[in-house]
Amino acid sequence: MSDSLLDKINSPADIKHFSREEIDRLCEEIRFRLIETVAQNGGHLASNLGVVELTVAMHRVFDSPHDQFVFDVGHQCYTHKLLTGRREWFSTLRTENGMSGFPKPSESEHDPMIAGHSSTSISAASGLAAAKKLRGDDGCVVAVIGDGALTGGMAYEGLNNLGRMHERVIVILNDNKMSISKNVGSMARYLAGIRTRRGYIRVKTKISRVLQKVPFVGIKINNLLFRSKKALKGAILHRRGTIFEDMGFLYIGPVDGHNEKLLERTLNVAKSMSNRPVLIHICTVKGKGYEPAELKPKTFHGISGFDIDSGEPKHGTMTFSDVFAECLSEFAGEDETVCAVTAAMKSGTSLSDFASTYRRRFFDVGIAEAHAVTFCAGMAANGMRPVFAVYSSFLQRGYDQLIHDVAIQNLNVTFAVDRAGIVGEDGETHQGLFDTAMLGTIPNIYIYCPSYFSEMKPMLYKSMYLYSGPSAVRYPRGSEKFKPEGFVAVGNDYDILDNGGEMLAVTYGRIFGNLCQAAEKLSSEGRKVNLLKLGLVKPIPEEAVKAAAAYRTVVFFEEGIRHGGVGEDFCSLLCASGWKGSFSLIAVEDRFVPHASVDSALARLGLDAKGMYETLKQNDPLSADSQ
Amino acid sequence: MSDSLLDKINSPADIKHFSREEIDRLCEEIRFRLIETVAQNGGHLASNLGVVELTVAMHRVFDSPHDQFVFDVGHQCYTHKLLTGRREWFSTLRTENGMSGFPKPSESEHDPMIAGHSSTSISAASGLAAAKKLRGDDGCVVAVIGDGALTGGMAYEGLNNLGRMHERVIVILNDNKMSISKNVGSMARYLAGIRTRRGYIRVKTKISRVLQKVPFVGIKINNLLFRSKKALKGAILHRRGTIFEDMGFLYIGPVDGHNEKLLERTLNVAKSMSNRPVLIHICTVKGKGYEPAELKPKTFHGISGFDIDSGEPKHGTMTFSDVFAECLSEFAGEDETVCAVTAAMKSGTSLSDFASTYRRRFFDVGIAEAHAVTFCAGMAANGMRPVFAVYSSFLQRGYDQLIHDVAIQNLNVTFAVDRAGIVGEDGETHQGLFDTAMLGTIPNIYIYCPSYFSEMKPMLYKSMYLYSGPSAVRYPRGSEKFKPEGFVAVGNDYDILDNGGEMLAVTYGRIFGNLCQAAEKLSSEGRKVNLLKLGLVKPIPEEAVKAAAAYRTVVFFEEGIRHGGVGEDFCSLLCASGWKGSFSLIAVEDRFVPHASVDSALARLGLDAKGMYETLKQNDPLSADSQ
Repeated sequence: MSDSLLDKINSPADIKHFSREEIDRLCEEIRFRLIETVAQNGGHLASNLGVVELTVAMHRVFDSPHDQFVFDVGHQCYTHKLLTGRREWFSTLRTENGMSGFPKPSESEHDPMIAGHSSTSISAASGLAAAKKLRGDDGCVVAVIGDGALTGGMAYEGLNNLGRMHERVIVILNDNKMSISKNVGSMARYLAGIRTRRGYIRVKTKISRVLQKVPFVGIKINNLLFRSKKALKGAILHRRGTIFEDMGFLYIGPVDGHNEKLLERTLNVAKSMSNRPVLIHICTVKGKGYEPAELKPKTFHGISGFDIDSGEPKHGTMTFSDVFAECLSEFAGEDETVCAVTAAMKSGTSLSDFASTYRRRFFDVGIAEAHAVTFCAGMAANGMRPVFAVYSSFLQRGYDQLIHDVAIQNLNVTFAVDRAGIVGEDGETHQGLFDTAMLGTIPNIYIYCPSYFSEMKPMLYKSMYLYSGPSAVRYPRGSEKFKPEGFVAVGNDYDILDNGGEMLAVTYGRIFGNLCQAAEKLSSEGRKVNLLKLGLVKPIPEEAVKAAAAYRTVVFFEEGIRHGGVGEDFCSLLCASGWKGSFSLIAVEDRFVPHASVDSALARLGLDAKGMYETLKQNDPLSADSQ
Repeated sequence: MSDSLLDKINSPADIKHFSREEIDRLCEEIRFRLIETVAQNGGHLASNLGVVELTVAMHRVFDSPHDQFVFDVGHQCYTHKLLTGRREWFSTLRTENGMSGFPKPSESEHDPMIAGHSSTSISAASGLAAAKKLRGDDGCVVAVIGDGALTGGMAYEGLNNLGRMHERVIVILNDNKMSISKNVGSMARYLAGIRTRRGYIRVKTKISRVLQKVPFVGIKINNLLFRSKKALKGAILHRRGTIFEDMGFLYIGPVDGHNEKLLERTLNVAKSMSNRPVLIHICTVKGKGYEPAELKPKTFHGISGFDIDSGEPKHGTMTFSDVFAECLSEFAGEDETVCAVTAAMKSGTSLSDFASTYRRRFFDVGIAEAHAVTFCAGMAANGMRPVFAVYSSFLQRGYDQLIHDVAIQNLNVTFAVDRAGIVGEDGETHQGLFDTAMLGTIPNIYIYCPSYFSEMKPMLYKSMYLYSGPSAVRYPRGSEKFKPEGFVAVGNDYDILDNGGEMLAVTYGRIFGNLCQAAEKLSSEGRKVNLLKLGLVKPIPEEAVKAAAAYRTVVFFEEGIRHGGVGEDFCSLLCASGWKGSFSLIAVEDRFVPHASVDSALARLGLDAKGMYETLKQNDPLSADSQ
């Protein structure tokens, strides 16, 4: 322990004067710490192993927090966290009350912005830099963005605006040829072209002449470059030809992203450009230094833990995503109009088999959710039956397109909304707590919520075939929960479990399992509560409201944001029917839910069996506890 | 009349065999019809005058609807409508039950997709083309997109995906150097570079050699090009150098977009490329052929009507946008951290004066709402006080960024949500009916709704200074409505007008004026209703709910979508307080609202004074009409 370099680092200043040999050792120690911790806690391993040298170089060349670093998506921030005073806390990564797996300003002044979603870094960095300039602060802002995140339109909006600004922003394009799985699109092909044609570290003899043409700073950089012959190797400036130069950036690259020395020199060149945005193109290997991750970067992108020696990931059980994908493949086999679309989440949405079986009808559009929605609209307008499988929190990117391109035309597009509800360890940025409220605002849409695997097929079928407009099937991460004996889940629009009670508890989705457990516990104490399970939450079936109106006390549980959710809609429909009973709504109140295991987060929200049991006991009109 | 060529055209087939001279006459007639109709009905004039020749050429070269046209944003579709069997109906443009100002599949089979928002055309065209290919249909899809719309990230997502597909899509980049006002960003500068460096119609002698390298089709096109020496002029193929070629497109251009003959030849070349996406870069003049519009394209972008001879637009009265901009300028004068951001809507949001007075603190990011939101987040994180002035329906583009980049960090960004509520003649795609529901889902946000000009300043102040997290001030298009005598609107979070009634009517925003008129009419009949005006709709003030709970009958009127709106929230809060009265909610039910004047649309929704009067009469517990 005492030999460890890493364990002596309490702030970035501590690595500034490390020798070359110490730097190499430090990188090795960091890699080991990353592997060790993620094997235990789960997390994003491959991307973090890819940026160890880059992060070390950034902290040696720049002065955080005076200079600010924005990590796009943010899942590659582990080394940054280890170097910025959070080393001792690192073992709590992604655990409840522990360190977040993403940048978080509330954790450290070294994190200027949160991150979690893709392609925001250039816009955020531009804003940070514009403010710095207006305030007379001469610090730099560095955005680190992967080639995968570069497929998102926002990154382009950022480049388009930054390219004409005179702010001190350095964009580091971390090109590892992957988004989450293999990167797609023309930009990916274009970057591959740059890499192949130019190769690394090819010294351009005309570099000096080129540089002197850069106004004001050319000579300065030129000196810097020529101070050492080797430095030249690091800064390959192309006279012409990259898209990034066309967009107004000084382009430097491609640079070997695992050569820390070279990276430092390149960053120093970029830092000296005070008047113009710079884009540094570095090439890294996802999973670098840990063979299983290098071989299977997709598996080690986000992983729930693994065995270090064998590299074997912890095996999961069957998930809702798996069941969805199986059903969709079955439909695709019978109906040639069925298409599947994903935004870089082929494996996350379990569509790998579909993709290989129905290649022509599978479309991975890269991280580009807005495009995906409108692309589906176009396909549907010409008679295909597209299904966009997308994580709940990422579908937020397509809200306007859902309204504008799909719903106004009432097109038959189905949204398979995965990771709906609490997602667990990824925390605030990834929780799927907004989809029912967001989708609920959209006219014409049908929203189905399976609580059990057996409901996926009938609900997916209804959404694709029985109803001809836009529809969604939303389901959680992971597996199904408790199912009461005797209950056959066939995907009805609503089910009523009449236990002979005088109070009604309503819910939808996976937490129906928790509610059943709560009801059984109450029943064992001689209290009875009837249950209403909604399968279709928009529009809420009229008969379900009518059935609920027969009760004096209705308690609604919702794994989603309260404002605009299903519970409020249910309440307003009950009231509109003239009902005058007592209505309680337990949902996610006006706040974001931090990272923790799914079960723990649900418990904190009062949405586990125990919490529901207590709420029901309190609301029971026959109970002494009731107000 | 009988001499008119235009009046003989009932379908695109009718212009296929026109002589060159007839084409010229036709274009002139179309221009006159456009000017005449827009002078009367209002609409988008400048952009339509710019694409007369293009649209004629498209219909001569392609066969709509077998070939499909997607007009980006869609406001330049008037000539297309005139040529596709909708000529006689054209005088009803933008009037109630008349022709829409945007493409609309329900109007004609020649409109494959609706449009209204920017930058969707390439994605939509890709989807249409992918479906065509899967169905074995060999038709082409043509997307027409302006250089302004090209600043939207979605356009880039579309290009990035289309560039590697083998679909028959032709993208026509209509470069008029404007988005709505002057175009901004690196891409705009880049396009200017192409225009300047290459000039129009420069014949490349090596064109034949280049073309023969294009697999399969090279020779065919080559023949086509050389069939006439002049055709060559139209198709300037650059061997290398444009971003679009880097993205995988065959680039043709720049081409003079007012030379119909040249356009036809260029389109024929593009049409013959069966295997590869083509981008044709044409240059047009916004407002072409009508001097006032050429001189003031910004004014004639969207206009409410004008005098044809003088080109004088109908003068409007003071608007909420004007009041907002005045207040913001005042704050900016006192506080150096105040910044204003717009997404290509400087004049629409009345920020022109701000822009010239506070140049360094004004940011026009182009049509890039997602970027704008995150850019604001970055500025706020470094201590500035950014205000993003944006139309309600366009803010939908930034929903995810609002949650992810602004709200999770609880940053002090203010959204000035303009065109909230019914917008009138632009119809479905532009109605501001989702913002309260959309913003309502977001934790930590405060939403203020001025009903009167005098409330703008205090509400904007509160949102920027008293409350430190994200906030919105939403206000409608146009001017304020009726204000009852004696009522002083000072921007309170809520106001109660106690008329001694036993029933309470609640609302917010401009329709409070209508409600007051309804109440006065009731009062004149001896019926009394008390009024609750909400100034702050999220969070709804507790005291307002408490006050409402004292009434047995509450009627809520909302100029917004019902599901997830303020009314449902109010109802659920009333119920949570234990209230057991009668609650009615009159809002926009689950549908889109078509174009019509604002007043007429409100009347149809029951939100004018008359409709409210009737609803209140029906709900009056003392009335015989009451159920």
